[in-house]
Amino acid sequence: MPPELIAAIEAIQSLPGIGRRSAMRIAFELIKAGPLKTRHFTNAIEQLSSGVSTCERCGAYVSSRTGDDKTFCSFCDSPRRSVSSLCVVENPWDIYAVENTGEFTGLYHVIGGVLSPLDGIGPDELGMPRLAERVRSAGVSEVIVATNPSVEGNATGHYIADLLKPAGVKVTRIATGLALGQMLDFAETQAISQSLRARIEL
Amino acid sequence: MPPELIAAIEAIQSLPGIGRRSAMRIAFELIKAGPLKTRHFTNAIEQLSSGVSTCERCGAYVSSRTGDDKTFCSFCDSPRRSVSSLCVVENPWDIYAVENTGEFTGLYHVIGGVLSPLDGIGPDELGMPRLAERVRSAGVSEVIVATNPSVEGNATGHYIADLLKPAGVKVTRIATGLALGQMLDFAETQAISQSLRARIEL
Repeated sequence: MPPELIAAIEAIQSLPGIGRRSAMRIAFELIKAGPLKTRHFTNAIEQLSSGVSTCERCGAYVSSRTGDDKTFCSFCDSPRRSVSSLCVVENPWDIYAVENTGEFTGLYHVIGGVLSPLDGIGPDELGMPRLAERVRSAGVSEVIVATNPSVEGNATGHYIADLLKPAGVKVTRIATGLALGQMLDFAETQAISQSLRARIEL
Repeated sequence: MPPELIAAIEAIQSLPGIGRRSAMRIAFELIKAGPLKTRHFTNAIEQLSSGVSTCERCGAYVSSRTGDDKTFCSFCDSPRRSVSSLCVVENPWDIYAVENTGEFTGLYHVIGGVLSPLDGIGPDELGMPRLAERVRSAGVSEVIVATNPSVEGNATGHYIADLLKPAGVKVTRIATGLALGQMLDFAETQAISQSLRARIEL
């Protein structure tokens, strides 16, 4: 096998959820498609790095190529979203999983992970002071913690409850209708929808 | 969702065997990986177009970056491969599927498809005169037809048998231990191995 083909198969196989056979199939398909289509594909991929950044307020994905007048993401900029309700998620992509349910009309806040003392991830690494400041200054009345249903995700929820409840903020947690350990962004929309409705106060 | 993210997800989803969720997961992983790793990935993909061509004798994949002294692929160039036995496959990637069995030590010949009159693919489009000429001039004694086990794959095998048998060449067909319609490059190595051993004369 030509070294270029071996290298491409290995690169494709390094993507999440792609086994060796799928990687080979994709590589062969790309060779067959030719340079023009392949270039179209790699261009689209490179736009991910150069064209996508995160909203400086909430951490959602935002196009880097918008004009100077637009600093925030489409959620933060929308006049139709409720500012009194804030959904806390681990990662930017979790926003789309919640958004697909159509159940939530508030704003989002990405904390970038979960509390994990052994990995050196404490409240500061997750920007907890910034979250508290945002909740206070924006007059948020309810914070919905939609971290993944893991031990750390639950612990992070309880930390946020302890942090914000003294200031009179209602802190809720999406119900775990999902199996413990299941990732939010891979869950069925229906399951996320149900767990939003059945959220419990912490 | 930023337009760049939507475009990337669509591009990834256009790859064979990738659904929408997998495409999203891959896109998010690439954003997370950052520009350096993404560039490494797209470089490897672009090498497929610029760095991989096909052997001018047999049609196998070959690195375009080899020196001028090496015109043919590693199969054609190998002194250890038997020149008396030729395995005919539809596509270059099918070679690796046969090669993985370790059962075949001859050379390969890629015809690029199967006979399909309704699509305008006849003997000339598959280079049948060139195949006949190669078999004649190289002194090939057996041609193993390893086209996919489809109606067209079988018909192509019979065409090759009719073409070469008058010249005293033995033409065999790999046994269909595989379900009709199953693609060769996705079959179990063991199944291909068995069908090579149980090949029948046409």
